[in-house]
Amino acid sequence: MRFKCNNSSGKYEEWLLVSGHESSMFVSKRRFILKTCGTTTPLLCLQPLLLLAEQYAGFTEVEDLFYSRKNFKRPDLQVTPHQHFDQEVALLDTLFPDGAAYCLGAVNKDCWYLYTLNPLPSRSRLPALGECEEADQTLEILMTDLDPEIMSIFTKEECLNATEATKKSGIDKIIPNMIIDDFLFEPCGYSMNGVTKNGCYMTIHITPEPEFSYVSFETNIPSSSYREIINKVLDTFNPGKFTVTIFSNQVSPTKDTSKELLFMDQIGKWQRRDVQQCSFKNYDLIYAFYCKFPS
Amino acid sequence: MRFKCNNSSGKYEEWLLVSGHESSMFVSKRRFILKTCGTTTPLLCLQPLLLLAEQYAGFTEVEDLFYSRKNFKRPDLQVTPHQHFDQEVALLDTLFPDGAAYCLGAVNKDCWYLYTLNPLPSRSRLPALGECEEADQTLEILMTDLDPEIMSIFTKEECLNATEATKKSGIDKIIPNMIIDDFLFEPCGYSMNGVTKNGCYMTIHITPEPEFSYVSFETNIPSSSYREIINKVLDTFNPGKFTVTIFSNQVSPTKDTSKELLFMDQIGKWQRRDVQQCSFKNYDLIYAFYCKFPS
Repeated sequence: MRFKCNNSSGKYEEWLLVSGHESSMFVSKRRFILKTCGTTTPLLCLQPLLLLAEQYAGFTEVEDLFYSRKNFKRPDLQVTPHQHFDQEVALLDTLFPDGAAYCLGAVNKDCWYLYTLNPLPSRSRLPALGECEEADQTLEILMTDLDPEIMSIFTKEECLNATEATKKSGIDKIIPNMIIDDFLFEPCGYSMNGVTKNGCYMTIHITPEPEFSYVSFETNIPSSSYREIINKVLDTFNPGKFTVTIFSNQVSPTKDTSKELLFMDQIGKWQRRDVQQCSFKNYDLIYAFYCKFPS
Repeated sequence: MRFKCNNSSGKYEEWLLVSGHESSMFVSKRRFILKTCGTTTPLLCLQPLLLLAEQYAGFTEVEDLFYSRKNFKRPDLQVTPHQHFDQEVALLDTLFPDGAAYCLGAVNKDCWYLYTLNPLPSRSRLPALGECEEADQTLEILMTDLDPEIMSIFTKEECLNATEATKKSGIDKIIPNMIIDDFLFEPCGYSMNGVTKNGCYMTIHITPEPEFSYVSFETNIPSSSYREIINKVLDTFNPGKFTVTIFSNQVSPTKDTSKELLFMDQIGKWQRRDVQQCSFKNYDLIYAFYCKFPS
């Protein structure tokens, strides 16, 4: 979620990072990123959060909002309002009249849900004087059906602590020079948050159990090509299937990397099954879904 | 629906056209197009239809399938399995293991549903010898909130018969030289089907009642630019909102028109609110949604 501010907010943002068992929270001057897993109910914190943003920082307007998730393997195990995307949309619609809900990929197979703001033409406007458009981008890779041998690294049986798991898996080499805050849970499970001095972050969450293995990777590092990072992530985790999503605004160096992804109908041993592009008010989005060639 | 055939089927197809009150049916050598409106249940005819195709034409394999519709204004007035896209998908999934369901546009605003075949990588294959890839494309424009003065043309009060309505509205000038089969219903409502000698068709269905006015336009005419046809359709009907979808395969002259649509963030008095692109096995698809600038 990004709040509106009318004074120049500088090119770099500093992040405050709060990590918990099933969640990570990144807070910067105008932004708020919350990542959760399991059966948490992140949308229920939205209203209190908006109140806090007003009380403590004076923000009364949300400039942008991105709520997204992959389809659940077992939606029935979730708690209301997260049992169906329609439920989540209904809740969000009560808070954001300009909210638009999308589903990318095949609704009956693997897909990815997104709720964002897409105001009516009448309300859209040019940036006011003093507002600066900063480069902004997000790369997200959501992986399932992961290599069990790699997943076993993220258990207390195989590693003593998070530092060992981070090193052994090669996570520390995906994007070098990050200040890393990592956790290895009992008996298994792993989370890491990394930040750089110039306002970039990376966050990885791992559910290693073979029956429902899942790894999420996200970064906002700017790059004119994400090919190398994508390859490193795939080499590190070796998933059976994965989705890639890239958001980039008009001034982002990443803007053209989406075109690159269009031509990647194959990445190593993974073949693309779906690719979709969307244009929103401030951002372009590309979504692609890949799965391993049958062996 | 297109059936698989292994002998060259020639460049041009001849269509057999059957028109009814709430439906049009186009049948050619390998294809079957069914357009319905109101509270018909087109998916319930699928299984009998597949049987007939096998019994009368020997077709045992469906090469491609496209089931699509706009979101309903009043889904509660529909009959099962058409009350929810999930219902429709569940039915289609029982018939097509390779079926993939998509939703383009904003799920909570205006959107367009599609079910098509998108086989797993293992089953996709290069065309066998003797199979010819014909150019194929479809332009569809679905319009709502139409100009009431124009809609009144499609009533028995204002026009004596279909021919008069076709001329008065300018429908005969959208794509000239069509052999037209048109209907004006009692007390209102209009349908037309047009075919050319070289295998092109155009079909228009109109619900003129102001509370739920709706016009659908579809054609498979090949063109390197659909700009002129889109403009003619908009001039003819003056909708408040509309979606444009273009399907084109790799050998279609229409292939680049989708790129053209990407740059059309405004068409006359209509502003684009959504634009999405998808790539499927044989087809590229572009979807865009426009609405009138507030007056």
